Amino acid sequence: MTYKAPTAQIDFILTHVVPFADLARTNRFAEATAETATAILSEAGKLAQNVLAPLNRGSDQTPARLENGVVRSSPGFADGFRAIAEGGWVGVSADPEYGGMGLPQALNMAVAEMMSGACLSLQLNPLLTQGQIEALEHHASNDLKARYLPKLISGEWSGTMNLTEPGAGSDVGALTTRAEPAGDGTYRISGQKIYITWGDSDVTSNVCHLVLARLPGAPKGTRGISLFMVPKLIPDEQGDPGVANSLKVVSLEHKLGIHGSPTCVMSYDGATGWLVGEENKGMAAMFTMMNVARLGVGMQGVGVAEAALQKAVAYAVDRNQMGPIIGHPDVRRMLATAQAEVFAARAIGLACATAIDMDRATGDADQAARAAFLTPIAKAYGTDVGIRVADMGVQVHGGMGYVEETGAAQYLRDVRITSIYEGTNGIQAMDLVGRKLSDGGEAAMRLLDEVLDGAKAAQSAHPELAHQLWQAAETLREATQALLERDMTDRFAGAVAYLTAFARVLGGHYHLRAALKGGPAHLALARVFMARVLPRFTGDLAEAQAGQGDLTALSDAALAGDFAA
Amino acid sequence: MTYKAPTAQIDFILTHVVPFADLARTNRFAEATAETATAILSEAGKLAQNVLAPLNRGSDQTPARLENGVVRSSPGFADGFRAIAEGGWVGVSADPEYGGMGLPQALNMAVAEMMSGACLSLQLNPLLTQGQIEALEHHASNDLKARYLPKLISGEWSGTMNLTEPGAGSDVGALTTRAEPAGDGTYRISGQKIYITWGDSDVTSNVCHLVLARLPGAPKGTRGISLFMVPKLIPDEQGDPGVANSLKVVSLEHKLGIHGSPTCVMSYDGATGWLVGEENKGMAAMFTMMNVARLGVGMQGVGVAEAALQKAVAYAVDRNQMGPIIGHPDVRRMLATAQAEVFAARAIGLACATAIDMDRATGDADQAARAAFLTPIAKAYGTDVGIRVADMGVQVHGGMGYVEETGAAQYLRDVRITSIYEGTNGIQAMDLVGRKLSDGGEAAMRLLDEVLDGAKAAQSAHPELAHQLWQAAETLREATQALLERDMTDRFAGAVAYLTAFARVLGGHYHLRAALKGGPAHLALARVFMARVLPRFTGDLAEAQAGQGDLTALSDAALAGDFAA
Repeated sequence: MTYKAPTAQIDFILTHVVPFADLARTNRFAEATAETATAILSEAGKLAQNVLAPLNRGSDQTPARLENGVVRSSPGFADGFRAIAEGGWVGVSADPEYGGMGLPQALNMAVAEMMSGACLSLQLNPLLTQGQIEALEHHASNDLKARYLPKLISGEWSGTMNLTEPGAGSDVGALTTRAEPAGDGTYRISGQKIYITWGDSDVTSNVCHLVLARLPGAPKGTRGISLFMVPKLIPDEQGDPGVANSLKVVSLEHKLGIHGSPTCVMSYDGATGWLVGEENKGMAAMFTMMNVARLGVGMQGVGVAEAALQKAVAYAVDRNQMGPIIGHPDVRRMLATAQAEVFAARAIGLACATAIDMDRATGDADQAARAAFLTPIAKAYGTDVGIRVADMGVQVHGGMGYVEETGAAQYLRDVRITSIYEGTNGIQAMDLVGRKLSDGGEAAMRLLDEVLDGAKAAQSAHPELAHQLWQAAETLREATQALLERDMTDRFAGAVAYLTAFARVLGGHYHLRAALKGGPAHLALARVFMARVLPRFTGDLAEAQAGQGDLTALSDAALAGDFAA
Repeated sequence: MTYKAPTAQIDFILTHVVPFADLARTNRFAEATAETATAILSEAGKLAQNVLAPLNRGSDQTPARLENGVVRSSPGFADGFRAIAEGGWVGVSADPEYGGMGLPQALNMAVAEMMSGACLSLQLNPLLTQGQIEALEHHASNDLKARYLPKLISGEWSGTMNLTEPGAGSDVGALTTRAEPAGDGTYRISGQKIYITWGDSDVTSNVCHLVLARLPGAPKGTRGISLFMVPKLIPDEQGDPGVANSLKVVSLEHKLGIHGSPTCVMSYDGATGWLVGEENKGMAAMFTMMNVARLGVGMQGVGVAEAALQKAVAYAVDRNQMGPIIGHPDVRRMLATAQAEVFAARAIGLACATAIDMDRATGDADQAARAAFLTPIAKAYGTDVGIRVADMGVQVHGGMGYVEETGAAQYLRDVRITSIYEGTNGIQAMDLVGRKLSDGGEAAMRLLDEVLDGAKAAQSAHPELAHQLWQAAETLREATQALLERDMTDRFAGAVAYLTAFARVLGGHYHLRAALKGGPAHLALARVFMARVLPRFTGDLAEAQAGQGDLTALSDAALAGDFAA
């Protein structure tokens, strides 16, 4: 059993479910035709299933390791990354001026999903590099762009994101890494960063770090943070990797999963850095990098879910216990629900990507707001589905699922990080009910209008499903309006539940579209979603509107188990 | 941070929430007074937190290993098991005639919960040994009892359960291990068994295997299975371990978690065995063993949940990100919900144990039916909560949770097996909607009557909570009646959801009792449960009544990702 790239499912969603076809009618993405999409999916799918998937188990068993200060990658990873780079897959959406393909994020995210499903720990390298490319394209000087973008886009070099410090995780504003002007236009960067994904490796000839740090006298908090490019090897006059910079990998983390991805503790000791963007405006640049990375992480969840589901289905077909267990109602329920959720999460992610693309192609503020609203949902729901489906995969395998050689447990261990990094899912949910509702709910309501229109359009063909979805969307609209009148702490206390409810309704919407446009299998899958996934929105909305009262009434002592206090 | 035994919480439930006090009014358990309970909890709690908890991390890092055919246990496990044995904790509920304490299962399960929370992989040894003791007490000849029970109860020897074979997991009837009469009253056992927990070790001087096998000419399926005692070392005339039997450990599994618990592939090659109970009645004896083990596994879930929650709370108190994160609404939500679910799962487990005890003390058929109905709920919900809370613990730790040295991930890896072994949670749910509703729903309705009575009793003190619970119980009653009219496949397609809904309603019931009898912290926790856990029963019941239609309409090909078929 090996991973099979889900090109047909992705193609169906791009063609029939999300407005990907609108992109080819813009100037920017005129080349993003249906034919291009099919070709890209086919090529990337082959890479994922033939080159990357075979590396996945070995990288779990032979993790990246630190030898004399240098990271040695898992077996085959250098060749695997080379294949990614040579296929042009690092630069799918990058600027053609610097060697990128200039294609929509919708296609980049589809490729990212397949690479993640094949080998998550290796895919993290291009994902982070792409984030760096985005940040440089939007914020760096032409000089920096010319020096770094071609090497990053071609995959000669890789990129990292240096944000977290021991005392500054979700609270980025607490970071203490310092940047001192050197007088020659460069800066001396000093400090320690943790959780640096692919902080070093032997798969590229250079590693470029984007580091958040504080200039002397900078304001406290997030308004005093600047962004710097700090390469491992400083480019020489020809732009080739030259002298070593004053930075090193202190140690690697021993993690639950993604063993092939070296997670580094980095130390900067007066390292030479170049300012990216303006002084004290580092957070804006970092957000550029993080936004696409967030959606990318959501697609990682979808990718691993797809792979774990395929493995579970293959096992359920083979495993005989009074007949193949795929015929047992409870096993079938698990697999069918997973398939329905994978479809929903994939559609939400690709809808989000398409909105990002439409915004970039047209500058339409509504599309920007739509993308901003969908991003936290795509990240959190995609990764929740990833974890849920990988967990289901273990369960379907029974005792075999608990034995490591089966590989089902690896998917669960690997994907478990995705609800934590790039902003925990709790932070995504708070972003949704906070910043993303700060337009008075306009973006939310436009999405719900679209859902209601979809329900109307499906009324004659699938009256029951349409009615069910219509009611759910109406209830969600009321809950959204109610939430808008609550203070922020009340919203935060139900944020995760609200995000989940929204994902269920959107999932129902895309399933209904698929049922209208697809064949009997799409309709059958939509029925599974409507019977087993959507109805849970009522429980979500009850919690979403519960407010903080019950949480503040429970004392810290009781939380710690002391009920007498 | 170390594990703190939750003796006060357990004591509160035994005193105020479940009818444990009724037991001391029976002849059999006259000694099981409140004072006895408090003393037992205190002593076992000290053992758990002072002796067993310190072994937990080391056993993960230094798994049990096979050396020259002998299992070498993790560091300190021999001393740890000795402490369990010398405290008498293997025999809490065992027959005093053979050295047991003769106390109720309610206390045994409370002790089991604490030992599991402290060190799950070591606790599996006494848990399985207790199952063997139960089976021998109920089914073995006096001769076998006299030879084995004193050694097992004192913890000199340990016991295993040999059920699963490569082709026979959930389908026990497919097993092929053979038993040939030797002519001298013994049998020669030949075959291979897998997933044998603690199949060998150096913590006891003998290991006693209860093995399911087929006699020559036995009927096919589960009606042709007999049970045999097959010791590693055959007891000599004095009852001491003598010559080695013809059995061996072939290999140990490399597992996701519980690394300290050796999971063995066992090979029997004409090993000498003694029949336990009647020929072809092995399943009945095995069920005796399994029933208590199932509840025990549910308490394992509660125990690990408690430990994981304590760790997460301690971290949330210490971790500062714009103030201690325990004050952040979403973190607080996760911790509070976990605390509310741990309470519910613990109460359900102890209610089930108390019903088992009442049945044994009085022979009351209603109590037997109550115990039988509650067992699958206690097993599945307890382990679901274990996994959910351990997962929550990883999430609260953020990036630190994904780093193995923190220990949060170990809880998740360890507890993940509990929804699989002793009958997967899917099998528990099918048992609930199948066999356990085969009385026409009488046991279910008696439980729901109790919930409704509880709601009435709380009406004046807590009108809103009482009303909410009353409505939920009424809806569950209707759903139960509807389910009784469906065929078995329809029931199975919603079985897990039905079980979960029942657990939510029972959890609400016990929370309401706690709110009535306890202090403000109990009321606050009940409100959390009613706001965030109970309301999800509507989604469960929608799925419980969905039937199999949507699942059978989805083809195997579509499940495998081929939507064109």
